Amino acid sequence: MRDNHWKIIQFGKLPKLNNPVFIEGLPGIGNVGKVAVDFLIDELKAKKLYEITSYTFPHSVFVNEDNLVELPIVEVFYKELKGKRDILLLGGDVQPIDEISSYEFSEKILDIVEKFSGNEVITLGGIGLADIPKKPKVYCTANTKKIIERYKSDLVSNNLYGVVGPIVGVSGLLLGLATRRNIEAISFLAETYGHPMYLGIKGAKEILKVLNKNLDLKLDISKLDREIKDIEKEIIKKTEQLSEVTSQIALKKLQKKLGKDVDYIG
Amino acid sequence: MRDNHWKIIQFGKLPKLNNPVFIEGLPGIGNVGKVAVDFLIDELKAKKLYEITSYTFPHSVFVNEDNLVELPIVEVFYKELKGKRDILLLGGDVQPIDEISSYEFSEKILDIVEKFSGNEVITLGGIGLADIPKKPKVYCTANTKKIIERYKSDLVSNNLYGVVGPIVGVSGLLLGLATRRNIEAISFLAETYGHPMYLGIKGAKEILKVLNKNLDLKLDISKLDREIKDIEKEIIKKTEQLSEVTSQIALKKLQKKLGKDVDYIG
Amino acid sequence: MRDNHWKIIQFGKLPKLNNPVFIEGLPGIGNVGKVAVDFLIDELKAKKLYEITSYTFPHSVFVNEDNLVELPIVEVFYKELKGKRDILLLGGDVQPIDEISSYEFSEKILDIVEKFSGNEVITLGGIGLADIPKKPKVYCTANTKKIIERYKSDLVSNNLYGVVGPIVGVSGLLLGLATRRNIEAISFLAETYGHPMYLGIKGAKEILKVLNKNLDLKLDISKLDREIKDIEKEIIKKTEQLSEVTSQIALKKLQKKLGKDVDYIG
Amino acid sequence: MRDNHWKIIQFGKLPKLNNPVFIEGLPGIGNVGKVAVDFLIDELKAKKLYEITSYTFPHSVFVNEDNLVELPIVEVFYKELKGKRDILLLGGDVQPIDEISSYEFSEKILDIVEKFSGNEVITLGGIGLADIPKKPKVYCTANTKKIIERYKSDLVSNNLYGVVGPIVGVSGLLLGLATRRNIEAISFLAETYGHPMYLGIKGAKEILKVLNKNLDLKLDISKLDREIKDIEKEIIKKTEQLSEVTSQIALKKLQKKLGKDVDYIG
Repeated sequence: MRDNHWKIIQFGKLPKLNNPVFIEGLPGIGNVGKVAVDFLIDELKAKKLYEITSYTFPHSVFVNEDNLVELPIVEVFYKELKGKRDILLLGGDVQPIDEISSYEFSEKILDIVEKFSGNEVITLGGIGLADIPKKPKVYCTANTKKIIERYKSDLVSNNLYGVVGPIVGVSGLLLGLATRRNIEAISFLAETYGHPMYLGIKGAKEILKVLNKNLDLKLDISKLDREIKDIEKEIIKKTEQLSEVTSQIALKKLQKKLGKDVDYIG
Repeated sequence: MRDNHWKIIQFGKLPKLNNPVFIEGLPGIGNVGKVAVDFLIDELKAKKLYEITSYTFPHSVFVNEDNLVELPIVEVFYKELKGKRDILLLGGDVQPIDEISSYEFSEKILDIVEKFSGNEVITLGGIGLADIPKKPKVYCTANTKKIIERYKSDLVSNNLYGVVGPIVGVSGLLLGLATRRNIEAISFLAETYGHPMYLGIKGAKEILKVLNKNLDLKLDISKLDREIKDIEKEIIKKTEQLSEVTSQIALKKLQKKLGKDVDYIG
Repeated sequence: MRDNHWKIIQFGKLPKLNNPVFIEGLPGIGNVGKVAVDFLIDELKAKKLYEITSYTFPHSVFVNEDNLVELPIVEVFYKELKGKRDILLLGGDVQPIDEISSYEFSEKILDIVEKFSGNEVITLGGIGLADIPKKPKVYCTANTKKIIERYKSDLVSNNLYGVVGPIVGVSGLLLGLATRRNIEAISFLAETYGHPMYLGIKGAKEILKVLNKNLDLKLDISKLDREIKDIEKEIIKKTEQLSEVTSQIALKKLQKKLGKDVDYIG
Repeated sequence: MRDNHWKIIQFGKLPKLNNPVFIEGLPGIGNVGKVAVDFLIDELKAKKLYEITSYTFPHSVFVNEDNLVELPIVEVFYKELKGKRDILLLGGDVQPIDEISSYEFSEKILDIVEKFSGNEVITLGGIGLADIPKKPKVYCTANTKKIIERYKSDLVSNNLYGVVGPIVGVSGLLLGLATRRNIEAISFLAETYGHPMYLGIKGAKEILKVLNKNLDLKLDISKLDREIKDIEKEIIKKTEQLSEVTSQIALKKLQKKLGKDVDYIG
């Protein structure tokens, strides 16, 4: 673990949480997970607990509406729900840039889950299809059969084996690495359109219904479409900006390649 | 050595092995080595000794038939063979992702060989041809002339020099790095079809014949074709899943490149 | 922080600087920032304070006019301005090669700013357009609203939000990372032509006007075009040389790919 | 410095060398430097002093004429020349795989030079032209004017500035990094054909003439063409093998990219 590549800043006092469920929704296919978690953070009025930056995130800053710069960050929020299990939420701008960083990041997140004696992790994501799905199905996979049983319902229509390939990135690794810590973990993946600029709002809605029912969140699903407009705006802005970073790098490399072609030394 | 990038979990008590031969068969050309070792593990009813995971393996999880996730792993099994030399077997889902990890992994494996006072390593692999070979030949190379002499037979028709290039990855490095530890090491490489989706079962069979004869394993070679059906299914599943990971990454990069093309800052 | 990848050599005695402003101008789009800072170093007769080399810079040496080799370097200069705030200037041949190095480098630079109790950082760069701009506009963004207010003038016509994407590399990271150290930081970005061989001298001029006015530098802007001839020559030489390095590497890789196509082992 | 990535094995007792000149010739453009140094090692009957292997070298093994595997290595030889300055020679199969490794390796080599109180380093290389040169010119560059003066002769027709770009890799870095240790260093670069499979024997000959004259080596230049046949054979073999490694990797990546194109998760 290259600890000095990671910076975790805590906001406010450490809350005492009641048997919290940890829910992850970072950028990914259709940003399905991110849309769902960002909505939960807003709608539940969750409080910010941690801000994570890392040398393994893209080496650039965003410019926000106030014309101020922001480093790419990942954040953890929490919500105390009286009489029910509390909730921890993981959202953010980016995922780590490479394999090793992705493992390191997932371990750090599970450290946080353990800090609050959490024993349940839910990760959210999308399944990219070649066409826009009319009514996206939600699939699940997990690291124990028990947690699949607990979340079984008519909203989760299918199991994931055979439908698609492996789960890449933090949404997958959190499940795999949680096993060793005896933390149960499940992933809900909604169908979405596989185009990188498509925002999987419909898929996110289906996932939110699953969470709403199982965790008894009393979300006003009707508010969803309105709220999502703001989230959409911000996500599209940042996604565009990040594609530009990548495209700049690609462009520069290409131009350098084409720029010169003879007389070299070695 | 970035020790914290590697996790080795031991299963059961450490056995006392009698002068064990260590046999490696990880994914590679035609998965020849993997098919052979996976068959040996099944057929010899070998016991699991170590499970190895690493931050240098792909950052994704597989979904298995029970709809449960699995981290990519590499495993070491052992088999006690009364009155004969015992056997250690190395199989798994993946090889490390880059050069440095490949060296580190190979050193860790040789540490295990030394732990059991092993003085012989056998690595298995394929030689990719442009066409499907009817009767695949088995070639060998090694780190001492003595071990080549010991394994000489009419089943190993040729020596490798001049036939092909270097041996890439763990199958090669184990031989090269074993020299320094005074461990003799030999590699058996069977001809196979060089297409990435082709499973080199015929080649694996030829290699199994070599091992069966030399190590007196009393394998029922007739069972081979039946058994291999199950192995095949699992390997193809995982190989497909891993290609998808790579193709996703490639696709995303490409889409990002094409997504935007003007107005950039630096 | 991989400290042994970085070497910072100090020249002369450490000066006592009066509330210094730190100005960065490294290679980037149109080399706008580099042209501006190199002019400031010459024109203000700034003194060299630090020379920075790094294992994360390109692994090559330049050949200079005296036929002597030079490692790629980044330099910090200072200028004492009686009765006014002193100035620190950061210029050089290159930026670090990857994300992690870029973060590490930016932190090391901010360490230098803090060493002199600096509380203001200015980074300079270009905005690449599809065509050559006749009268390049200068945009700004920052990490506090206060610093934007202080540098507001009719020379800085626009704010950056919505115009372009994120700010990539050291010019962006210095702003983002300065926030945590309570250092105010602003970036001035001038429009320029996005072609990699185009030198954004006009854009650099517009930025120099902004600095001249705000920092009361009493620069003879008329000298600019003459002076810039020498700077131009050196920059073009080094940029060409660096493109060659990249193109060599690309070329070699391509040639290797195409060189062989059958019979491989693994 | 990632010290555990490097392994240096010493052969025999440490000799006491008289003010040794250190000469480098690793693989590069046209393998000009390698051909020259390999000839010197043979012709001077130099003794092996160090064998260097590294996790930053390609992760593969060569198969030699005896059908035995060999890790990619770099070697240091020495030759005591009575009444004259002794000589250290650096040759080998490969260069480190990336920027950071290239810097690290060059520092380790300069540590060896200092161990023998060496104060002069000579690096050898090629300048790739678009056509095969009939009579290759030898150019030089260095880290001090003094050493250029010392090696001036009608055999070294030109200085390097303006002719070509930067010197990439170990041949360049040794010069740049030697400056800080007050070691004088010069590079001789001979014109050669820029095709990756072309062996720059003519260029190597011209460089050998320079060394023969300046260091009074009493080489039998007439032997050169004969000797070189063996060297050629071995170099071509290893170069082919290494291209294959790279081409395999490229091929696999390409096949994976093309293998699958829909339904992905994240």
